[in-house]
Amino acid sequence: MLPKLRSAVVCLTASLSIASGQTFRRLGTCPELGCVLPPDQQEFLPGQQFDIRFEVHAPKNGSEAFNNGVADEKFTATIAKGGGRPKSIADFFKLKEPTLETWTFSWHEDLFAQEAKTPSIVNVASKIYRRVALYEPGEYTVTLNYYSGKKTTAQWTVRPLATKKKAKNVVFFIGDGMTTNMITAARLLAHKTVNGKYQSLLALDKFPVVGHQMSHSIDTFITDSANSASALYSGHKSTVNAMGVYADSSPDPFDDPKVETIVELLKRIWGSAWGAVSTAFLADATPIALTGHSRSRYTYGALIDQALNGVSNYSWTKMDGPDVYFGGGAEQFLPGSGSYQGKDYYAEFAKKGYSISLNNTALSAASNRDKALGVFCRSNFPVWLDRNIFKENLDKLNNDPSGAKGSAKDLPGLKEMTLKAIDVLHTRGGQQGFFLMSEAASIDKQMHALDYDRALGDLLELDDTIRATIEKLKQLRILDDTLIVVSADHGHGFDVFGSADTKYLNAKEDDRDKRNAVGVYENSGLSQYVVAQPGVSYNTGPNFPLNWDPRYVIAAGMGANPDHREAYGVDKTGPRSPAATIVNGSSDYYVNPKDKPNGFVVNGTLPTDQSQGVHSLTDVPVYALGPCQDAFGGTYNNIDVFYKIADCLGLGHGTNKTEDRGK
Amino acid sequence: MLPKLRSAVVCLTASLSIASGQTFRRLGTCPELGCVLPPDQQEFLPGQQFDIRFEVHAPKNGSEAFNNGVADEKFTATIAKGGGRPKSIADFFKLKEPTLETWTFSWHEDLFAQEAKTPSIVNVASKIYRRVALYEPGEYTVTLNYYSGKKTTAQWTVRPLATKKKAKNVVFFIGDGMTTNMITAARLLAHKTVNGKYQSLLALDKFPVVGHQMSHSIDTFITDSANSASALYSGHKSTVNAMGVYADSSPDPFDDPKVETIVELLKRIWGSAWGAVSTAFLADATPIALTGHSRSRYTYGALIDQALNGVSNYSWTKMDGPDVYFGGGAEQFLPGSGSYQGKDYYAEFAKKGYSISLNNTALSAASNRDKALGVFCRSNFPVWLDRNIFKENLDKLNNDPSGAKGSAKDLPGLKEMTLKAIDVLHTRGGQQGFFLMSEAASIDKQMHALDYDRALGDLLELDDTIRATIEKLKQLRILDDTLIVVSADHGHGFDVFGSADTKYLNAKEDDRDKRNAVGVYENSGLSQYVVAQPGVSYNTGPNFPLNWDPRYVIAAGMGANPDHREAYGVDKTGPRSPAATIVNGSSDYYVNPKDKPNGFVVNGTLPTDQSQGVHSLTDVPVYALGPCQDAFGGTYNNIDVFYKIADCLGLGHGTNKTEDRGK
Repeated sequence: MLPKLRSAVVCLTASLSIASGQTFRRLGTCPELGCVLPPDQQEFLPGQQFDIRFEVHAPKNGSEAFNNGVADEKFTATIAKGGGRPKSIADFFKLKEPTLETWTFSWHEDLFAQEAKTPSIVNVASKIYRRVALYEPGEYTVTLNYYSGKKTTAQWTVRPLATKKKAKNVVFFIGDGMTTNMITAARLLAHKTVNGKYQSLLALDKFPVVGHQMSHSIDTFITDSANSASALYSGHKSTVNAMGVYADSSPDPFDDPKVETIVELLKRIWGSAWGAVSTAFLADATPIALTGHSRSRYTYGALIDQALNGVSNYSWTKMDGPDVYFGGGAEQFLPGSGSYQGKDYYAEFAKKGYSISLNNTALSAASNRDKALGVFCRSNFPVWLDRNIFKENLDKLNNDPSGAKGSAKDLPGLKEMTLKAIDVLHTRGGQQGFFLMSEAASIDKQMHALDYDRALGDLLELDDTIRATIEKLKQLRILDDTLIVVSADHGHGFDVFGSADTKYLNAKEDDRDKRNAVGVYENSGLSQYVVAQPGVSYNTGPNFPLNWDPRYVIAAGMGANPDHREAYGVDKTGPRSPAATIVNGSSDYYVNPKDKPNGFVVNGTLPTDQSQGVHSLTDVPVYALGPCQDAFGGTYNNIDVFYKIADCLGLGHGTNKTEDRGK
Repeated sequence: MLPKLRSAVVCLTASLSIASGQTFRRLGTCPELGCVLPPDQQEFLPGQQFDIRFEVHAPKNGSEAFNNGVADEKFTATIAKGGGRPKSIADFFKLKEPTLETWTFSWHEDLFAQEAKTPSIVNVASKIYRRVALYEPGEYTVTLNYYSGKKTTAQWTVRPLATKKKAKNVVFFIGDGMTTNMITAARLLAHKTVNGKYQSLLALDKFPVVGHQMSHSIDTFITDSANSASALYSGHKSTVNAMGVYADSSPDPFDDPKVETIVELLKRIWGSAWGAVSTAFLADATPIALTGHSRSRYTYGALIDQALNGVSNYSWTKMDGPDVYFGGGAEQFLPGSGSYQGKDYYAEFAKKGYSISLNNTALSAASNRDKALGVFCRSNFPVWLDRNIFKENLDKLNNDPSGAKGSAKDLPGLKEMTLKAIDVLHTRGGQQGFFLMSEAASIDKQMHALDYDRALGDLLELDDTIRATIEKLKQLRILDDTLIVVSADHGHGFDVFGSADTKYLNAKEDDRDKRNAVGVYENSGLSQYVVAQPGVSYNTGPNFPLNWDPRYVIAAGMGANPDHREAYGVDKTGPRSPAATIVNGSSDYYVNPKDKPNGFVVNGTLPTDQSQGVHSLTDVPVYALGPCQDAFGGTYNNIDVFYKIADCLGLGHGTNKTEDRGK
């Protein structure tokens, strides 16, 4: 499920006392009344462009009420390198002093205040210094002086220079929401053990280096996919629903202080080719965060325009569009309410010389020399299981990418899109190489829906794509020049805890009796998904289950659930919808009476306005193969994935002479 | 929770059709009617001693009924190296032909048969060849010929020689049940972030190499702690509840075919010192599997005798007892029903020259030159949280290790035991070095009880012990000679998915309203466990939470639950007991009315005879530091942990000249 879109008065989470780690906060990155964005403890690649915003808050009421709600407009700010002399921000960066801005926002101090509808109102005075960069590695201290004597400081670190390109190409696979637990379960479904020894393995199992990365966001310990993708792509964590910016408290989602992303850097510095492939709609968080700079991930149309034309409201790194862009989400391309300013983005991309593919046949036929746009359906891709096994479910959809009624036909899979992307990027990147991000989006989307089979099917599709990609890079003789990184943006608290005898479960009437169908420990047995059944063929070849619908299935679940039923086993008629509202228009969710009617009821652990499962805390795995692979061992923050890739691509430069190559 | 003890007629899990991966099986490692143990696909360290059993099954009734229930007693068996000429087992190993054995066992084909009490009966003819070894690396084929024409073959692999010792010492930490998810949660509780950057880290976070190991057992995908420990210690997977043996179908739990363990090998080949430290009772699976050879982990007294005196019913590698043995479980040492043959094992150990410590003061004072036994309580150790924060809970216990009434006083922690163990082992091992296994047992035990705070407290104690161990090894100037490996034996499906406002939860009456106390995504906020609260001091120093009982706590859970209530936040009065029976003597579990009475009800997903959570499937992390550390990157089977350590210790020898050094 996507976290909910917030009202234009942006700040919603805030605090009980100023200096601690509460659930509700005035502004997550700003425990004091003065805010520096980027805040304390942030790190930068040398030469990476960013904006700096200062805010001074004057809470009018509530536990933090101050100065009668009058924000200090006379604040000043300085920056000092190491122990050096502080200079004003304008002097240091040789900028004109920006105009003062003011606005008001509101938040609730806790659930009681929210329930009582007693918001706290905050007046703000602010300035933003746009498009700066720090070229010299080391420590910097930024100080905001306000209310005659108050001080907020931020310690910033500029990472070491990294000017040498160690890998020509990078392929970055993201299994959205993918955890080690899910990888283990996918292996169990698709690969057979004989007396405890797997007879074949996942492609992931053969990666030489494994690491763990921490997915939390800048101001909360559970992330969404926008700010976690942004951290992976920019080295800067952000706030839930934001990408490519540090979220400020202003109402405009497009005025927040930006940070340059990996593809902006790569294009500017080396002129390499880059592409994004996803089974989500292209404006979804993971693909769009490569180019997006917005406080709100829900500004879909505008974000697609940013991908093609770059940031247009401020001077920023030039963006001439991706070399490859393959995914779903025709809504943002068809002219209409979903597209930016109602324009036809198929036409806008075509104007810039893109080939446009709306199905797999066109995709295969597209030139490898032209920039390539492929939009294969509206919304997200149907999942692998429906595309390959329960194909009749596709016919029920109304997702033709051309805007015609009816279902998208002749869809490529993640593998077809990724291999074609490599062909185009290899051709277009030439000596400058390429960067490709390829996302298996519905691991996450189906875990949200508690549809474990569909999630694991898409995980296996990702694994199969990785296997084919390695093979493809070998054929192109560029495997040794290519760093392959596979990771996730966050997790879900999923695990398998036994098997379930679906025959027994279905034969029992009582909910408690049904639960006795579950076998744990010695009764978990072995995977029946890998046992061929006479007369049953799924035609899915090796590396996928031989049987998706055995009598004994995995019993799996997670701690975070809406009210729902469990019956285990695959839903043949389409993805699950575990919870439903009873009253029309209500956001109070109960067991969906149509979902798993043979199952037993499990009442939820989540707030009753949640219709699905939610993201979880766990560190997620990182797999690496190729140049720089050893850098990815051990445990680190998600932003470090960016710095490791940026280091391998030689993107950290100490002068601005490489700037704006793309212009 | 410990999987339940099975009846003497051992085999309970079995199959619907002969050749597949079912939940119920006649004998998990034996899908055909002829069984070779060790079965197909097994691997061996060169020179590692083991037994070979053959069984021929004659099912009397049920779907597999054969030969009127008459087992073929004229079976023959051969072994061939590579493509070589097969020799009879007796000839190949230069053994006398063993006596034929026969027995009968029963099993149920599925839940319906179990419910109807219609067992399938199997008659067995068997032979066992004891104490053999394969010295030459390569492939071997073992063939069992039976029923005039039936054949069961087993392909065995002997791993490459490993004769060179690359590490003088190995310290192997096991966090029982510990997953990456739990490590992430423990970090959140004990270490503070500022704007997304941790200001301090776990000791584990600083390990240079991370890997993943698969924990499944030989015949089921969910393991218990006996056979998973055994896999880590011997390179041979086994069956739930078994250790140091391949489980056969005979009624005697001590006649199953054995495999030599790491400490048996190490003592025999190099004469090094070894020790085990655990916060469990010493006869519990993880510590006892270092020396135990039994089909049943529940033969506690006999297993302690095996640890001290070695295998006594058959000729086997000599075992003169560990150099260090620190843990709980006085029941197996005090003379009485819990000890082997009712003997006083304090006296038995003392007779062999052990110092005996029953509290922390005695432990510190014990000589580093003598073998050391330390038994500090009956049953398992109270957890870190009760030993250090809620100490009043200790007084309620009746666990004095001397057998006196009342509670154990002056308990050491895992850190004190481990550091003392290193002192003794370093002294006693001398030039031959040492092997130490140190287990944080109650990560698992408290996860079973859904007591997340207590589990994470013990995980933090493990992390603190690792930190102190590295420091200690540095001081002794042996850090560079010591391989440190940290891993787990299996997981639990735990994760954190948000925060909970305990004040709001407690203020609400209705279960659905209480759930709205949970904050997800942007409402998860930051950890309040690291926020100092005026007037509150837990005196637990850095690397542990400053506040165990904040208003906003983690909301966590798992998919596998008995009926229970959730209220989140720590239970100050002692470990949780989430489910209870209503009818005395019944094994039908419901919400425990005494547990979390302010919480909301979550009905379970497990069979109703389960009182606690269960183990899960997930691969578990491996952390390595020191000589051979790079071998531990990537993804592998749990048995590979043994082979990697054995390789680093030079335990794979091509001749038997090193045999029985210990005798």
